[in-house]
Amino acid sequence: MLEATQDASIDVSAVCGGVGTCGKCKVIVRQGSELLGALTEFERQCFSEDEVQAGYRLACQAEVAAEGLITVEIPLESRGSRYRLQVEGLETPVELNPSVTGVELEVTPPSLRDVRSLDDALIEAASRRGMKLERIEHDCLLSLGKTLKGLNWRVQAVVYEGTKLTALTKPGSPILGVAFDIGTTKLAGYLVDLKSGRLLAKSSSVNPQVLYGEDVMSRLTYILKDKDGLSNLVSSVRKALDSMVGEACQAAGAMREDVAEIVLVGNTLMHHLAVGVEPSSLGRAPYAPVVNSAYAVEASKVGIAGGPGCTAYFLPNVAGFVGADCVADTIATGLDAGAENRLLVDIGTNTEVVLAADHELWGASCASGPAFEGAHIKHGMRAMSGAIEHVAIDESLKVLYTTVDGSAPAGICGSGVIDTVAEMVHHGILDVSGRMSSEVATDLVVKGEDCLEFVLADASKAAGGKPVTFTQRDVREIQKAKGAIASGIKILLNKAGVTKSSLERVYVAGAFGTYIDIGSAISIGMLPDVPLHLIKQVGNSAGTGARMCLLSRDAKRRANETAKRMRYVELATCEEFQDTYLRSLRLNGF
Amino acid sequence: MLEATQDASIDVSAVCGGVGTCGKCKVIVRQGSELLGALTEFERQCFSEDEVQAGYRLACQAEVAAEGLITVEIPLESRGSRYRLQVEGLETPVELNPSVTGVELEVTPPSLRDVRSLDDALIEAASRRGMKLERIEHDCLLSLGKTLKGLNWRVQAVVYEGTKLTALTKPGSPILGVAFDIGTTKLAGYLVDLKSGRLLAKSSSVNPQVLYGEDVMSRLTYILKDKDGLSNLVSSVRKALDSMVGEACQAAGAMREDVAEIVLVGNTLMHHLAVGVEPSSLGRAPYAPVVNSAYAVEASKVGIAGGPGCTAYFLPNVAGFVGADCVADTIATGLDAGAENRLLVDIGTNTEVVLAADHELWGASCASGPAFEGAHIKHGMRAMSGAIEHVAIDESLKVLYTTVDGSAPAGICGSGVIDTVAEMVHHGILDVSGRMSSEVATDLVVKGEDCLEFVLADASKAAGGKPVTFTQRDVREIQKAKGAIASGIKILLNKAGVTKSSLERVYVAGAFGTYIDIGSAISIGMLPDVPLHLIKQVGNSAGTGARMCLLSRDAKRRANETAKRMRYVELATCEEFQDTYLRSLRLNGF
Repeated sequence: MLEATQDASIDVSAVCGGVGTCGKCKVIVRQGSELLGALTEFERQCFSEDEVQAGYRLACQAEVAAEGLITVEIPLESRGSRYRLQVEGLETPVELNPSVTGVELEVTPPSLRDVRSLDDALIEAASRRGMKLERIEHDCLLSLGKTLKGLNWRVQAVVYEGTKLTALTKPGSPILGVAFDIGTTKLAGYLVDLKSGRLLAKSSSVNPQVLYGEDVMSRLTYILKDKDGLSNLVSSVRKALDSMVGEACQAAGAMREDVAEIVLVGNTLMHHLAVGVEPSSLGRAPYAPVVNSAYAVEASKVGIAGGPGCTAYFLPNVAGFVGADCVADTIATGLDAGAENRLLVDIGTNTEVVLAADHELWGASCASGPAFEGAHIKHGMRAMSGAIEHVAIDESLKVLYTTVDGSAPAGICGSGVIDTVAEMVHHGILDVSGRMSSEVATDLVVKGEDCLEFVLADASKAAGGKPVTFTQRDVREIQKAKGAIASGIKILLNKAGVTKSSLERVYVAGAFGTYIDIGSAISIGMLPDVPLHLIKQVGNSAGTGARMCLLSRDAKRRANETAKRMRYVELATCEEFQDTYLRSLRLNGF
Repeated sequence: MLEATQDASIDVSAVCGGVGTCGKCKVIVRQGSELLGALTEFERQCFSEDEVQAGYRLACQAEVAAEGLITVEIPLESRGSRYRLQVEGLETPVELNPSVTGVELEVTPPSLRDVRSLDDALIEAASRRGMKLERIEHDCLLSLGKTLKGLNWRVQAVVYEGTKLTALTKPGSPILGVAFDIGTTKLAGYLVDLKSGRLLAKSSSVNPQVLYGEDVMSRLTYILKDKDGLSNLVSSVRKALDSMVGEACQAAGAMREDVAEIVLVGNTLMHHLAVGVEPSSLGRAPYAPVVNSAYAVEASKVGIAGGPGCTAYFLPNVAGFVGADCVADTIATGLDAGAENRLLVDIGTNTEVVLAADHELWGASCASGPAFEGAHIKHGMRAMSGAIEHVAIDESLKVLYTTVDGSAPAGICGSGVIDTVAEMVHHGILDVSGRMSSEVATDLVVKGEDCLEFVLADASKAAGGKPVTFTQRDVREIQKAKGAIASGIKILLNKAGVTKSSLERVYVAGAFGTYIDIGSAISIGMLPDVPLHLIKQVGNSAGTGARMCLLSRDAKRRANETAKRMRYVELATCEEFQDTYLRSLRLNGF
């Protein structure tokens, strides 16, 4: 079963590599358990009788004995932590129709009785297969004679968009593609077999640009201040992407020279830096992108080595803070198709909001800031080992929490923060204006250095020997962040002339969005209060969208249409923004 | 007047650089002498009274005093010897419609009220000028923001084929192009202003590949035998072409970064080596070109530096020995247009023959060999200083000749050889089978080492102190060469079903073709015996064709149609070839 989850690119934690020693890859079988082999000895050690009754298995131990439908739930604790960029909730099936295709050709060698050039012989052989070659790319042309002869005139033509011959390979050779989601913090790569659509390997890496600035604005500042700034940022990310292609190929036992296309998404700055574009217009009002249109260029021109004539295809951007990643989100969740009113919220330092309503697409970017990433929060941290990630307060006002990896609490990450605020409001420790009260029946509200603080873990339990607290000042930061998101959503609903109750589906995207408790997010008014079953956490849907475009020209067309159609709303210039924002700071719901 | 000839790219010898000391730039004014200033003191020294009466002037001294029609003949001896690649006889006027155009754009800067990307702003500005930009090339994209700002949003868009933006420059900046004819021996380059169509400068150079082999076959052998052969040939010619762009720009006071397109022609091997294509299929039957189709690629990919996004456009080939130069010849002479029956013969080591008849185009290549270049001829030499270039034999069988530069005779070049054979036949020194007779009333036929020889210049007159002779063996070489050409022409006439008498025009192209005496060539049966006024020597029409394509998309379209339409006849596989060739060896006319 572990193999099946890997094929489906669902990351299940398997610390021991699937050899059956760590017991981390717990899954719950909801349907089809009779198609699985019996519990192993090791599984019996791992699970209580109740858990066995509830359908728990270890994915690495559960052998699929017969074909059929098996439905499996992967509990949060079993999800891979290395790849927080997940691929879930893909409900948009893609018909395999990649830009790069392989066609086997029997080329007729020229003879004295039939004098023709090698390019004409190739064009003729392709036309017999119903393909009209219009161009032979440079690298392929240079060695055309040797290649045709070497392969004895039977070749696989690797063709881009049905007209451009990029390579001639041995019949049957793989044709591969790589999809990249270039995050401000993380890079995620997916190696895909373009003939079968199968995911062969994934690769992830920290974006090395973090060395030069944690967020988009600090990197733009670095470019302005340092004469080598642009070239450092460009070359570091390209180098990382290039290495990831190599790693993924190695992991899959594949050859780099079979990589024929690379599709890339990222926010607008990440996009510009990977293309190599001087991006300073993104750093000042009106934050104009240099380039919005989809852009195809030889991969070697952007420093990534693939096969001969390998294309790098960058999805289009919409605005300075609504980038190609948001376009990919949109097509991955299918917001561009169908007639339902739907909302997509991709939460991050900038939160992109897309609304589909009445066959129109609206987009906006909210400056939600880095509070959810732990910045500006006294004990804030990223979702790393020891971060408090979920919080509950019981009726006796005792704090319950879980941490990443179950380690002693070292701080609090974004999902923990949202739970904390929601629970504090619920129990009257915060009022709806966000004011912390010391008048409650608990000694956990204490006077800190310059404001009240709420103790989540006391010194005896905390990893650093100092209590982990959540302060009045932290509350204000979270109010600003959630207020920005909520007002963005409200203004889009307003522009489109629909109400929150007309929403038929809400997608919450992004690594962070995957880990938050939706109930908490609704209760503090960050997300609209729609029935919970209408809300779907879709993980790294940007990466999914990029993969779709690798597999389907139709998906590329949809991405391009999406970027053109999306009506971008510049929140800063909306009359109602200030009022809406101020109202959205309150903690009493959307 | 010298300036006018230079502007018209007619090379008039001006050894002193036009300062009025060498007296080499003699011209004969046929009409409009009254529009010129009076004869100068220096001209009176240079010319006899008869010459003055005949209208002789020195081009550097004759001042054009008033506007009007002045018709001037440039005698052979005044023609520039540096540039034997001449541009004459261009009767195909080209409407200026280059692939690269400049459009001045007023780009609306993005604002918070009108948020758009820079590429969209450019596309919109272009569409106001009726132009649909579909792509911005990489180099241009990388610095788009800085460029637009630096030029204050008023720019000249340099656009390829109406859709691809390659550069943004200051409004009014020049847009330049370079046309190259890559000869096996010589390179000729032409720097052209693409806005006016004006020729700005010419540049010529020896093809540095001659170091690795004098002709096509020896270079192919070098590629096969030496592992660095291909890369040496490719890099040496590219380096020379790149330098010539620089030289031409310097000569014209122009900037290399304004060069936006380079059009290249050459025979099929020269074409392949400049593109960088591994050409060994050209070296063995069936002599298949690797690529026939026209090929556009970034100039930087073929080692030539132009402006940003500069395109190198290679005209199409027809066959292994009918290359892009022959296609350029065809459109320069207009053989592809009109309904007349016309013949083009571009004489060289391989002689290309093109026949237009009944709206069809036929092409063939004749292996005429290097005899006309001086090879395999005992005292043969290229048309350099001291070469006997014209020969007459008077009634007393005395030999009259002229040499290049008037120096003492050092040998005999191709045009001299043809005259010699014609005159020897005329005076019975050769019979029509090519046998030399010692039975004639002259002591100029002598017994040489192993065969009879005819003395053109005796030891007392010759440069080396040894006589310059023309041998029985030399006669055989010339018979083979002219026989190959004549049989190629005859077979094409036969295939097309027309007779020589139906020919309405014959063009003789190539540097060599410019200098031969047409009467002599007809009398030995190398060219069909049509009325002399139907024959036109058109010099380097391949270079002219390349320039036409630089100036006109229509000319490119004609070149591509020509290459597709031309019915290539492989002489080696024609049944009638052997008979026709044997009959064509005779020296009694076509």
